Amino acid sequence: MSEADLKENLPEEEATAEAEIAPASESLDEENRLKGEFVRSVKDALDEEDFDRVYDLVEPLHPADIADLFELVDEHERLTLARSIRDLMGVEVIAELNDWVRELLVEALPADVVADIAEQLDTDDAVAMLEDLDEEDQQAVLAEMEPEDRAAIESGLSYPEESAGRLMSREFVAVPETMTVGDLIDFLREHRELPTEFWEVFCVDALHHPVGTCALSWILRCPRNIPLYDVMKREQTLIPVGMDQEEVALRFQKYALISAAVVDDSGRLIGQITVDDVVHVIQEEAGEDALLLSGAGDGDINEPIMLTVRARLTWLVVNLGTAIIASSVVGLFQGAIARFALLAVLMPIVSGMGGNAGTQTLAVVVRAIATNQLTDSNTWKMILREFRIALTNGTALGILIGSGTALLFGNPLLGAVIATAMVVNNLVAGLAGILVPVTLDRLKVDPAVSSSVFVTTATDVMGFFSFLGLAVLTGLA
Amino acid sequence: MSEADLKENLPEEEATAEAEIAPASESLDEENRLKGEFVRSVKDALDEEDFDRVYDLVEPLHPADIADLFELVDEHERLTLARSIRDLMGVEVIAELNDWVRELLVEALPADVVADIAEQLDTDDAVAMLEDLDEEDQQAVLAEMEPEDRAAIESGLSYPEESAGRLMSREFVAVPETMTVGDLIDFLREHRELPTEFWEVFCVDALHHPVGTCALSWILRCPRNIPLYDVMKREQTLIPVGMDQEEVALRFQKYALISAAVVDDSGRLIGQITVDDVVHVIQEEAGEDALLLSGAGDGDINEPIMLTVRARLTWLVVNLGTAIIASSVVGLFQGAIARFALLAVLMPIVSGMGGNAGTQTLAVVVRAIATNQLTDSNTWKMILREFRIALTNGTALGILIGSGTALLFGNPLLGAVIATAMVVNNLVAGLAGILVPVTLDRLKVDPAVSSSVFVTTATDVMGFFSFLGLAVLTGLA
Repeated sequence: MSEADLKENLPEEEATAEAEIAPASESLDEENRLKGEFVRSVKDALDEEDFDRVYDLVEPLHPADIADLFELVDEHERLTLARSIRDLMGVEVIAELNDWVRELLVEALPADVVADIAEQLDTDDAVAMLEDLDEEDQQAVLAEMEPEDRAAIESGLSYPEESAGRLMSREFVAVPETMTVGDLIDFLREHRELPTEFWEVFCVDALHHPVGTCALSWILRCPRNIPLYDVMKREQTLIPVGMDQEEVALRFQKYALISAAVVDDSGRLIGQITVDDVVHVIQEEAGEDALLLSGAGDGDINEPIMLTVRARLTWLVVNLGTAIIASSVVGLFQGAIARFALLAVLMPIVSGMGGNAGTQTLAVVVRAIATNQLTDSNTWKMILREFRIALTNGTALGILIGSGTALLFGNPLLGAVIATAMVVNNLVAGLAGILVPVTLDRLKVDPAVSSSVFVTTATDVMGFFSFLGLAVLTGLA
Repeated sequence: MSEADLKENLPEEEATAEAEIAPASESLDEENRLKGEFVRSVKDALDEEDFDRVYDLVEPLHPADIADLFELVDEHERLTLARSIRDLMGVEVIAELNDWVRELLVEALPADVVADIAEQLDTDDAVAMLEDLDEEDQQAVLAEMEPEDRAAIESGLSYPEESAGRLMSREFVAVPETMTVGDLIDFLREHRELPTEFWEVFCVDALHHPVGTCALSWILRCPRNIPLYDVMKREQTLIPVGMDQEEVALRFQKYALISAAVVDDSGRLIGQITVDDVVHVIQEEAGEDALLLSGAGDGDINEPIMLTVRARLTWLVVNLGTAIIASSVVGLFQGAIARFALLAVLMPIVSGMGGNAGTQTLAVVVRAIATNQLTDSNTWKMILREFRIALTNGTALGILIGSGTALLFGNPLLGAVIATAMVVNNLVAGLAGILVPVTLDRLKVDPAVSSSVFVTTATDVMGFFSFLGLAVLTGLA
């Protein structure tokens, strides 16, 4: 392999890199985001149809920043931007694009251009690009591809969404465990079709089952005559191809993996997942709790607005149902409220504080379930823990609001009633906050998605019922 | 370097790995968590003080699972467990322990034992272990350490918490850019004190400034006579030592990094951060939004209960203040409520739905700010987007609840009032949901921490005020 061959094989940034650094940093702010003024100058140039200027502005950017730029310009400008910088739209940019933006661009391109791009991408990125297209467009693109690439992508698409099969790349290095270190180094030098960047080499047996992994740093440091079976790490984390991506991410974290072998049902090595793909999954899965708990759906600011409206409205209508249930509890006490309107003034405090306490417990429990911290063996311990926290906080809040009410309105009985209701509702909040998500998890329902409806209903209903009920029982109204 | 030397240098799992796989999987469930029955048998053995049995049970586990086991047993059992498996408590276990559990164990150990452990850990893990100790204990441990290790850890501790300096490891490979590939391979083979696993080699100039990075896969595939300056990637993401860890994590994600050079103020290479450390940061930072928005504080289920109580109660007391403000708005309309108690029945629907809509917007905006998706250049676009969503959803909900109310109570005016209030409060929710976090972010306050108090106050106050105010204005009561 000659020096010239080698350079061809290296990532292309290398050649142009030095020129890039200075101007790129001019367009980024101190938090490494594209500056507002830079984005505006691109938008102005697009407006003026000065496409050469657009090109000159964008050219120095890192592919990841070009991808960001597409998010920051308006939706109607995205296609024009893509057209003006056609030869900068390399695979790194496509791979980094936000899903919604990519879908918009890909749908607008002719099938053969999409096929060309897909062939250059790693399998996992190509699958991600094609999976959102509708059936017909997908088939049109696949028809334009080389049979080998098409087969790889079709097989990727055949795995369930968000599974290891979609995440894995088919580009990896696997060698027989009987090879020596020297043979491996020669093999790597001779085979130009291997991926340009990889971090570990997988050793396989005659049946193509992975039996060990060699970190490249070990190989580099070993004498050439040593066989791989003496160097490789035999303890491996194998990823079944159907495993959910959240589970894959947890394994990468738990065992601090850089890459992992993906195996089919018969245990044969069919792909690898690398940590850079998992990083996105971890980010998404960890970040989506807050979005799911609030019913904000996908929560991506690039989602078409009508999809966002639909997702959020669905959730709000469900919550409207629970709000009506809660208000019908208040309806039972209309007479009492008419006689003593102060009850209506104070009742939102009890229900609202219960809601706050319930949300706290829920956030903690949903997180603990998602990170495998809350399991069979500590569920009871955690229920007890939440009960104690709820009792302590409820009592503290009860004393505070109870004594305040008693003093302000000169009515100790009213103070006692609101204090008691506060304790009761905090206990309801704490218990619902853990029992609801734990139960949903056992029923294989994602607790982040639907827990908060149940918890809020519980705290609203019990907040109104305990406060107004006690008021009537004690003869306050 | 002989073969025997080499084996000494390799991670120790290798020798015992084959024996581990089978029994370990017996103790794990299908989601790779320790089985409840396994944890119970360990607890039983601890109860019976049968420490040999404890050892036999724990011995086959992976270090990461041993670390998990400490979380799953009761607090009072943790020290006994550590004592019964003393020689299994290797650096991998210590590094994987939950912060709170580690603090408990470390505080109970004599300073010289802690010093021994710290010397075996990578700098970043040692710093993480010592940073939570109080000043006096920390000094005692440092005094027991070798001067060189002590200096490294002291310098790590001198950087602000959650900065790159705390996260970086001082173990890395840096060589002059003028070295050839062959010289580098020889250098790696000869220097046993280098880290056992690394993924990239940093090239430095005479001033020890990083000038390029070589992925090991390129080095393995290059002829020996090529100088590194022809192979290395010159475009680098340098991490200033004072950079916040959240920012570090965003760069790793954006540029799909495996490792990155950390530089001091004069640009000299002083450490490296690897992706496996960043994975934890990403998980934490992305996951903490839900916890912070709910005011659940740290949210770790291993946090001592009194700290949890304090964190949550502080938040609840702040919210009590806002609930009182909102209820005082209701107080203004006591007369109207006494005349027409149905108002008290319906008013929680308006405020509650506003709260839900506000929480949705808030979750989306906080996430977009945290991931650098919401910047100067698209803030106005996003405000407009949220306004349109709020108007659409508010109108839909207003029509739904308004017509329902008009029909159910045979009171079209009441229906019109609640419908209008619903639209108004949804707009308030949508605008507060984006303006509050964006403003806090500009003021350099973490929007996840305090936004929801302001947003909830706005939706409660405006919910009550718009509905009850309109009812009075229209002469309903």
